[in-house]
Amino acid sequence: MGPALRQQRGFSPDDVSHGGPLTAVIMCRHIHIIFAQMQGPQMILTHATLATMDGPLIRDGAVVLDGDRIAWAGPMADLPHRGEALDLQGRLVTPGLIDCHTHLVHGGTRAAEFEARLNGASYEEIARAGGGIASTVAATRAASEAELLRSAQMRLDQMRREGVTTVEVKSGYGLDIETELRLLRVARRLQGADVVTSFLGAHAIPPEYKGHADAYLDEQALPALRAAHAAGLADAVDGFCEGIAFSPAQIERVFLESQRLGLPVKLHAEQLSNLHGAALAARFGALSADHLEYLDEDGARAMAAAGTVAVILPGAFYTLRETQLPPIDLLRRHGVRMAVATDYNPGTAPMTSLTLAMNMACTLFRMTVSEVLQGVTIHAAAALGLTDRGRIAPGLRADLAIWEAADPAELGWRIGATPLHARIYGGRLDA
Amino acid sequence: MGPALRQQRGFSPDDVSHGGPLTAVIMCRHIHIIFAQMQGPQMILTHATLATMDGPLIRDGAVVLDGDRIAWAGPMADLPHRGEALDLQGRLVTPGLIDCHTHLVHGGTRAAEFEARLNGASYEEIARAGGGIASTVAATRAASEAELLRSAQMRLDQMRREGVTTVEVKSGYGLDIETELRLLRVARRLQGADVVTSFLGAHAIPPEYKGHADAYLDEQALPALRAAHAAGLADAVDGFCEGIAFSPAQIERVFLESQRLGLPVKLHAEQLSNLHGAALAARFGALSADHLEYLDEDGARAMAAAGTVAVILPGAFYTLRETQLPPIDLLRRHGVRMAVATDYNPGTAPMTSLTLAMNMACTLFRMTVSEVLQGVTIHAAAALGLTDRGRIAPGLRADLAIWEAADPAELGWRIGATPLHARIYGGRLDA
Repeated sequence: MGPALRQQRGFSPDDVSHGGPLTAVIMCRHIHIIFAQMQGPQMILTHATLATMDGPLIRDGAVVLDGDRIAWAGPMADLPHRGEALDLQGRLVTPGLIDCHTHLVHGGTRAAEFEARLNGASYEEIARAGGGIASTVAATRAASEAELLRSAQMRLDQMRREGVTTVEVKSGYGLDIETELRLLRVARRLQGADVVTSFLGAHAIPPEYKGHADAYLDEQALPALRAAHAAGLADAVDGFCEGIAFSPAQIERVFLESQRLGLPVKLHAEQLSNLHGAALAARFGALSADHLEYLDEDGARAMAAAGTVAVILPGAFYTLRETQLPPIDLLRRHGVRMAVATDYNPGTAPMTSLTLAMNMACTLFRMTVSEVLQGVTIHAAAALGLTDRGRIAPGLRADLAIWEAADPAELGWRIGATPLHARIYGGRLDA
Repeated sequence: MGPALRQQRGFSPDDVSHGGPLTAVIMCRHIHIIFAQMQGPQMILTHATLATMDGPLIRDGAVVLDGDRIAWAGPMADLPHRGEALDLQGRLVTPGLIDCHTHLVHGGTRAAEFEARLNGASYEEIARAGGGIASTVAATRAASEAELLRSAQMRLDQMRREGVTTVEVKSGYGLDIETELRLLRVARRLQGADVVTSFLGAHAIPPEYKGHADAYLDEQALPALRAAHAAGLADAVDGFCEGIAFSPAQIERVFLESQRLGLPVKLHAEQLSNLHGAALAARFGALSADHLEYLDEDGARAMAAAGTVAVILPGAFYTLRETQLPPIDLLRRHGVRMAVATDYNPGTAPMTSLTLAMNMACTLFRMTVSEVLQGVTIHAAAALGLTDRGRIAPGLRADLAIWEAADPAELGWRIGATPLHARIYGGRLDA
């Protein structure tokens, strides 16, 4: 686990433990909630519908938080604590959401390209005009660390307003040593959610190395990986295994270096074709293989054996108007855990809404409500190698989402509007 | 135009015109904007990127508001007014958005049915268990006016946070005289946006009239229409012309009665099959024909001749995983104006995001950015028969949306997060 996870971000519970009882007045959606923290930083949530992710829904449940940890969760009738409580009036409480696949830090937009394509420009014309990922790389290289931080924080704030408390952030729009490190430094500086970083030097071949992918790896990506690791900036290593990106042999070189450095790996695999990337990733004990539209049975079997999580990304499928569905049934049959993420990126998924990704996974891929909720909590945690979150259980992080809903089905059903009532991050309530 | 449009809702400009200069401190996305209204209720917006909908973008533009009307709009260089101004620092300003097709008022949710279907239940099983539209009708009939208002206002508030200033609201989940009127009364009581009502008694055949559609029209829908008109509750009349709903002959009966009452009509037409509903609607000079996936050339020609607007509804297409695309090119070729709306409803489009509808219209139907922006402003106004909004021009309503974006393309490009910076409704700034 990287430094970002060991270090508590934002306010720490210590900030509120001095000076006796503290009363916080918080405005959530026009409702003023007033609660008193008695005897130190303890908070009791009562009359909640609990989706603990450890068993069936608890219809009249309670959660006790002690500082930044969950102290107790269960039915109201068994509540062992007394004291001032926050009465949730039946509202659904889930673990804080975890978005386990994002490219949150980049310069520029791709709005002009989006418009040009609708106006009839071909991919080739756009590429000739410097569009596509190359335009994001150029804009990212030109952006200062402060600019990158400002725009990424804005996007993270949109995610926080949907109950996200942990987010994975990849590099991969620098594609040179200096810029890749800048992206990871920015990721580490994001506020208001735990950030897990993935080094994604093997995202694309930059224009200056066109046709020389191995030289790019030798001269930029692998040195950048070593520097990122030395600076404590990389929690994991990712790659894009595809005809338009890196071959399995090239990905293997990146994975071997990651292994040497002791960093876990993951992979963009089988998105547009089947290069058997998932099996390659599984062979390296990858945390996750992501996209997987073209995954075959051997790949699914290898993932199941390695405990590699399948990260399902409907946003890119939607934007690209793909027709090849990821093999959800195959993954079910082999018992591969499935996570769901936004894949936020400016090209194929300019989408910061994890609840919309849940709806898309249900609507487009026919995943069940239970599967998509696991996919943004317990299995998303697994995709990041984290065991201290993603469930509501004693000892785990006090990261929760409180919903203006009575049932998890409402989270998948609604489109394009988050029913978040309030968020608890590191034991602290915000909205 | 109905009473809802003649009457200014919420605060009126008069509320701020007394007592000399007024300073308002408004919090928009962590930015405090302080402006002073000089000499009465005049507001000047400067350094804006203006999408007036009357010509090309104005890159360094200004808008002068006088009370609840636009007094002037044009390039900064020509700005005839002096005084304190709100510097928008290049932000895009569009007309306030208009959502011209919603079923905003209803009881219950359809989340359980959404989940059941993903868990493998067939449509038949769901129907046998009282699901589908019948479940919404039952929940709506059981709901009090206060309950209906609370849930509809919550959904409207979500729309307001995306810059919507005018919304159409249909009845159609009561399907008896009393409940249809209750839905329209609720629509009239919604706050914070102008509401235009459509009477949609001919939405579905209620269970108690199964197989007796004409009797339902005679005994419930047409009497409810007359009562709604007498009470000033209906601005227009809508119907659903489809095999599973009402035949063209039945819709014609509804339209003839509307004509007699002097109410404009519109129609859900050609969504699931081609019953030539659009041509029927055009024959009655309909304001709009909506959905239109199965529209043919005769229908498009008739709509063009009648000036009937095509309302494009990608949310239902997405949720139903339809493959029959609405004939956008045909509509273009015949010069039919196209609007875009959410079609918010609990069954086929539980979607309150008009910017997401814009993205879906671009992504799924390949409408251009310019088309979808017209579709939620000037052409949406036309779909409601309104000429006093939908553009930024002197004399029109001071309803504007200010975006955290520099170009309209960003509104279509982003998915699932509104870039609204602030909204001006009836000359008053909110966020």
